Amino acid sequence: MRTDYVHGYTDTETRRLAEQAETLADLLHGDTQYEPGSRVLEAGCGVGAQTVQLVTRSPGIELVAADISEESLAQAKQRVAAEAPDARVEWHHGDLRDLPYADASFDHLFVCFVLEHLPEPVAALRTLRSLLRPGGTITVIEGDHGSALYHPQSPAAQAVIECLTVSQADSGGDALIGRRVQPLLAAAGFRNVATHPRTVYADETVPHLVDGFTRRTFIAMVGSVRERSIAAGLSTPAAWAQGIADLERTAEPGGTFHYTSFKVVGVR
Amino acid sequence: MRTDYVHGYTDTETRRLAEQAETLADLLHGDTQYEPGSRVLEAGCGVGAQTVQLVTRSPGIELVAADISEESLAQAKQRVAAEAPDARVEWHHGDLRDLPYADASFDHLFVCFVLEHLPEPVAALRTLRSLLRPGGTITVIEGDHGSALYHPQSPAAQAVIECLTVSQADSGGDALIGRRVQPLLAAAGFRNVATHPRTVYADETVPHLVDGFTRRTFIAMVGSVRERSIAAGLSTPAAWAQGIADLERTAEPGGTFHYTSFKVVGVR
Repeated sequence: MRTDYVHGYTDTETRRLAEQAETLADLLHGDTQYEPGSRVLEAGCGVGAQTVQLVTRSPGIELVAADISEESLAQAKQRVAAEAPDARVEWHHGDLRDLPYADASFDHLFVCFVLEHLPEPVAALRTLRSLLRPGGTITVIEGDHGSALYHPQSPAAQAVIECLTVSQADSGGDALIGRRVQPLLAAAGFRNVATHPRTVYADETVPHLVDGFTRRTFIAMVGSVRERSIAAGLSTPAAWAQGIADLERTAEPGGTFHYTSFKVVGVR
Repeated sequence: MRTDYVHGYTDTETRRLAEQAETLADLLHGDTQYEPGSRVLEAGCGVGAQTVQLVTRSPGIELVAADISEESLAQAKQRVAAEAPDARVEWHHGDLRDLPYADASFDHLFVCFVLEHLPEPVAALRTLRSLLRPGGTITVIEGDHGSALYHPQSPAAQAVIECLTVSQADSGGDALIGRRVQPLLAAAGFRNVATHPRTVYADETVPHLVDGFTRRTFIAMVGSVRERSIAAGLSTPAAWAQGIADLERTAEPGGTFHYTSFKVVGVR
């Protein structure tokens, strides 16, 4: 009985988590579909969260997925093997600014939550652009932590969000990059650049987004920089606890949370 | 020749302005259509910008448009007479918290850019709710100046935007209300409340939005509080000029501007 109950619960929970992940993935990736047979480069695949989206939404593509972290790449391989076993993926371990592929050898580039980590995003985009055939497309998706709006407002919550932004800047990245992806792509030589803001809004009427986005995506992301923020003197244990508690308050009934990602498509 | 040229230019300009207004109106109002014969209350019609949208998008409705400003109401009448001469509109001069209509006498309520000006929005919403028949809908649209993201970033620009927020707070309003419309409607007793963020994003690839939103809507709105902000010691002429110049920079090539309004629908 007990085991059955636990299994039943786990199945329900697993289904619920998959559904909420799908809702968020639809928002970002629902309109990205590549023609069968096309050769696509995912530059910076990380642990494969988006790789699975690419190969399931465009099942006929030949995907090259590259990442600089061997550990991430191993996780991505596992994830794709489990979730999309029929996908044709060539895995490459290396820096996306120095990939061993011929000029104009890809039909499409896909770069999701990657530019935010690069000190020189335009230079990286120029290098990637050379790998794209003329007329091929690039799709870039980036968040922007400046778009985090929530109720109730809280200076303590804003302070922990700013720790995330400072932490990323200290690593040479830019957590506020979403708003400037269009100028970056234009500067790298892409044309017909079109920006599509994708706004997630969560309140008690959409509990799967409260849980899937506010709690498990945004607050979890903020939580990941707790130690380094306190070590760097940007916060204290008490201030951090207050900031997180206030963010969690936005996920309770009566609270709201808003965040915009920028999906930007350009053409070589 | 010269006269023809000038007229031709003016016609083109008029058409362009109408088109950009329509693009923004579609974003906010495109999915608001009321069934013919339904009785609709626009609470706080102002100078009639949304009134025209309502009667042209739902041509068969019987609209009551109310506003507390006699001067605004006169402009709204003129605008509707010019742009939708066949519309059936009953105009009412008075406070939306004290309207002379029977309980449950409206099928739909429409409240656009109004709650932001009220010191007690929940009380106002409760009063309005009593005018709505059970099962009837309320549609609320509000901006949130916290959603203003732009490139290049600028502390001077942020300072003038904050003048707008402070100025509205000093008048008893809330320029950051968009994020909390759902809890307000829930607190006033509406059910099935659903929030739809409507995000405007403008850069050089969409010049009609740069002109129609960044320049003629947002920067113009900020500009309207210059005198009172300087008089109140919130800014100086030099700081103001710098802030506006930096906002105008976001409307130049290479600049971007993002703003979210919240469209929220509930049911009595």
